Amino acid sequence: MKFKVFSELEYYVQFPTTFIFNIHALRATHQTILEETLIVDPFFRAEEFNSAQGENRFTRLEVRKKTNLKVTYNAVVDSYHEVVDLSQLEAVPVGKLDNSVLPYLFPSRYCQSDKLAKLAYDKFSKIKTTYGKVFAITEWIYKNTDYLSGSTNSQTSAYDTVIERAGVCRDFAHLGIALCRALSIPARYFTGYAFQLSPQDFHACFEAYIGGKWIVFDATKLAPLNGLVKIASGRDAADAAVASLFGSVVSNSVIVTCECLEPDFVPIKYKPNEYLGVSF
Amino acid sequence: MKFKVFSELEYYVQFPTTFIFNIHALRATHQTILEETLIVDPFFRAEEFNSAQGENRFTRLEVRKKTNLKVTYNAVVDSYHEVVDLSQLEAVPVGKLDNSVLPYLFPSRYCQSDKLAKLAYDKFSKIKTTYGKVFAITEWIYKNTDYLSGSTNSQTSAYDTVIERAGVCRDFAHLGIALCRALSIPARYFTGYAFQLSPQDFHACFEAYIGGKWIVFDATKLAPLNGLVKIASGRDAADAAVASLFGSVVSNSVIVTCECLEPDFVPIKYKPNEYLGVSF
Amino acid sequence: MKFKVFSELEYYVQFPTTFIFNIHALRATHQTILEETLIVDPFFRAEEFNSAQGENRFTRLEVRKKTNLKVTYNAVVDSYHEVVDLSQLEAVPVGKLDNSVLPYLFPSRYCQSDKLAKLAYDKFSKIKTTYGKVFAITEWIYKNTDYLSGSTNSQTSAYDTVIERAGVCRDFAHLGIALCRALSIPARYFTGYAFQLSPQDFHACFEAYIGGKWIVFDATKLAPLNGLVKIASGRDAADAAVASLFGSVVSNSVIVTCECLEPDFVPIKYKPNEYLGVSF
Amino acid sequence: MKFKVFSELEYYVQFPTTFIFNIHALRATHQTILEETLIVDPFFRAEEFNSAQGENRFTRLEVRKKTNLKVTYNAVVDSYHEVVDLSQLEAVPVGKLDNSVLPYLFPSRYCQSDKLAKLAYDKFSKIKTTYGKVFAITEWIYKNTDYLSGSTNSQTSAYDTVIERAGVCRDFAHLGIALCRALSIPARYFTGYAFQLSPQDFHACFEAYIGGKWIVFDATKLAPLNGLVKIASGRDAADAAVASLFGSVVSNSVIVTCECLEPDFVPIKYKPNEYLGVSF
Repeated sequence: MKFKVFSELEYYVQFPTTFIFNIHALRATHQTILEETLIVDPFFRAEEFNSAQGENRFTRLEVRKKTNLKVTYNAVVDSYHEVVDLSQLEAVPVGKLDNSVLPYLFPSRYCQSDKLAKLAYDKFSKIKTTYGKVFAITEWIYKNTDYLSGSTNSQTSAYDTVIERAGVCRDFAHLGIALCRALSIPARYFTGYAFQLSPQDFHACFEAYIGGKWIVFDATKLAPLNGLVKIASGRDAADAAVASLFGSVVSNSVIVTCECLEPDFVPIKYKPNEYLGVSF
Repeated sequence: MKFKVFSELEYYVQFPTTFIFNIHALRATHQTILEETLIVDPFFRAEEFNSAQGENRFTRLEVRKKTNLKVTYNAVVDSYHEVVDLSQLEAVPVGKLDNSVLPYLFPSRYCQSDKLAKLAYDKFSKIKTTYGKVFAITEWIYKNTDYLSGSTNSQTSAYDTVIERAGVCRDFAHLGIALCRALSIPARYFTGYAFQLSPQDFHACFEAYIGGKWIVFDATKLAPLNGLVKIASGRDAADAAVASLFGSVVSNSVIVTCECLEPDFVPIKYKPNEYLGVSF
Repeated sequence: MKFKVFSELEYYVQFPTTFIFNIHALRATHQTILEETLIVDPFFRAEEFNSAQGENRFTRLEVRKKTNLKVTYNAVVDSYHEVVDLSQLEAVPVGKLDNSVLPYLFPSRYCQSDKLAKLAYDKFSKIKTTYGKVFAITEWIYKNTDYLSGSTNSQTSAYDTVIERAGVCRDFAHLGIALCRALSIPARYFTGYAFQLSPQDFHACFEAYIGGKWIVFDATKLAPLNGLVKIASGRDAADAAVASLFGSVVSNSVIVTCECLEPDFVPIKYKPNEYLGVSF
Repeated sequence: MKFKVFSELEYYVQFPTTFIFNIHALRATHQTILEETLIVDPFFRAEEFNSAQGENRFTRLEVRKKTNLKVTYNAVVDSYHEVVDLSQLEAVPVGKLDNSVLPYLFPSRYCQSDKLAKLAYDKFSKIKTTYGKVFAITEWIYKNTDYLSGSTNSQTSAYDTVIERAGVCRDFAHLGIALCRALSIPARYFTGYAFQLSPQDFHACFEAYIGGKWIVFDATKLAPLNGLVKIASGRDAADAAVASLFGSVVSNSVIVTCECLEPDFVPIKYKPNEYLGVSF
């Protein structure tokens, strides 16, 4: 399925600043970049590099003078979303997890799974399958958390959200990840462009590791799961921030769009007892 | 320099449990394992594997029945500690950091560098060199934090320690890491066996990335820096716990020793204005 | 109903210390002290005084030398427990609350009702009567929190307990208070001796203000509500600690007992749809 | 000294709401209200009452319909500010504190003195006099905390401010109180109108109990201490919020002014080694 994605970020740079952007669509087995441009205005040389694990395509930009900066990214991306019959997939016991998956069991900055152990156990441990547990986690978050722009900030973590019960997509994702890890289910943060997300913005959700595959879940239910174009994954938002800034800037505007270039898009959202999962 | 290291961990396993141990001396460029045995009593097959980045040697053990378990590790290790003249090393700007180093700039579970930004800036930003900053950070932690066994637990993070001002080696390390990252200096958690540590135990300290090298720092000042035998590094204790347990066990005892097998050990601790750093 | 209560606290006083004890049975309209002795061994003059609001009888003791100290309190108390038909009581709107009740609406050290507003609203606001809300709060705490000695400490607050889901009587009380206040129901901390509490110890629960009366609730369900002998009430444990210490001591032992001196004690615990409340 | 104070608060009331305002100048031994009007537009009957301890004059207002509401307070107040020679005042040991002062030793919602014990002890316990300690606390807060509008919110507490090192007058006051209490110095929150505060707004600072008097301290240094017109005191902002709202409203604007009606105002701010204190 082909998507056209676009983002435009505007800053006022006050002092020399190094930017690390995380806005490129990822190059991956199931995602091909057909066209892509990055425009930096005024021109500064941008250096692209991958994270060590290949889960992010970072763009590094050094701006050494006071200026208004506009970074514009355009791409056409072919994303293949595998729809998996989860009733056929067994959980992977911790004893069999691949070493590259193991870090996604550990607590991280915004996902203090160690603190949520008893909550997760009380609410979800009796559910039989791994898919059933993660599905129940997303339903629980959806029911108990209000999506409320501006209710949280960059320091808000799963520990806060479980009490304050309001947040944005990033907070919903962090809570989902923390609850999965608390049940020994590896889970990671997922950022991307999202077709039919309203209003249009960068989106965040999470992937849980079930039966050897990373299955995507979205506790906000704000966008179809097969309309996502992956930017990055990581332990949490600390690994996959849209922009990490080392210096001093004012962010002026962010515009994001995602269109589907094919006429036959059929949105997928999970339903109880369907056991379908979307994997990238 | 040759060291003989030993650890013995005893558990009562109540329910089937997967252990992931992190007690082997690391195989690395500057550290050679000359001899090594791991005894699991009663016998269960232990599987050794490395973390994806090669910074940990994990041992995975599945114990499927109720039992007392004793895990004993013995090794003779040759560790080469490079003593670096830091006055010759320049800071690596964020714009030039290798992608494998970048994650050590981001906040993590126990090192909320984002929350300590202003504190770090106020106290240390005026110090000129990167080494000077990290040295001052360790001195500040040493002066303002009491080493107090039992004062903290596995959920204690740098955010707590900066206020409560008491902790153990793990807490001192987390605070050091958080303050470095808050100043855009990459820093990571380091665990090891430590010669002349009293009382003998597993030890934790941290490494800061200066001039392209990972230099070890220890804000507890409890052990010579050239008496360390590296077990693992990671973002924080979440990545390098001595034992991660998935199941239900009671920990009964931990015994650790580290001896130097050479007669001419000259302990190294940093002093102001000496600009010497120990790197592994 | 007559009760015989006893407490014995032993300390090793290392440096000159002022103690403020909160172990005397309260003198109140519905509670009469029939006999009472306080023995301080070795002898130091104890000064008794009431809190400004009359909700505590404090005993102040100044120990000016290194010593072992034993404080023993014995009393026979006649406590009258009114059993209230709550179906007849209406809620008191904030607009009609007496000024002495108002502070129990505000958040306090261990009862951050401001942070629990949304949780309380989501879970309990649809329940019709004030009694029904508070009853549901105690049931929810009882079901979702494990009573676990040693799981918390003197810094643990309702914010922690709602996530960690384990605690002791003090933590159950704080969470109950915080959730009540979040719904604009005044609530206060209650400490006392408790008949049939097992094992015997000082007990803590809470009172909610319903229909102009303070009705006692106990989310631990560990003791009959009509077996309580009131020591003190306050905003939370900060106001009604068993002992506040200004100096340096080691606590060696605490022994507490509470017996009923009458043969016909019929324990009261609340049941759904009964609308009975115990008031002191 | 005579002051003219004014405040005007505008709200949009969405649902029936009970307001408890705390905007009247306090009637106290050293403060006389010469003239005073409160206008509620549209008219709703306002009920005035004092807190149980007489430290607040609350105004309660019930608004039972959807409306725009404007509350305007005007007063001319004669405030007598005693200037105390603190070199003559001795500390009051805990053993001699009056029962009405004792609660100001205990931790409260925004002043977690129990968590700051070691920090307070390390930094200030060696200073000899009580005044010296409190003076040093205000200097330390002033030096280490940025006054930054919008950097904190109604949930921010002393625990956060000591780390985040930014806040508004309320946060400066909370931190001062917490550090005093951690040293066994009673301290309470103080709100008022403040002459020469720029920009004009409600102000908050704190009082410490020294030599039997409540001495006012202001770690923001934003206003002269003898230009304060007292509104209320309390354990912290939970007791003395400008407006506590039970219902649903939108706050539209707040305007505050404070003028001195006498020509010979000489501003007082504390200086090192002067030992002068302002008491109300």
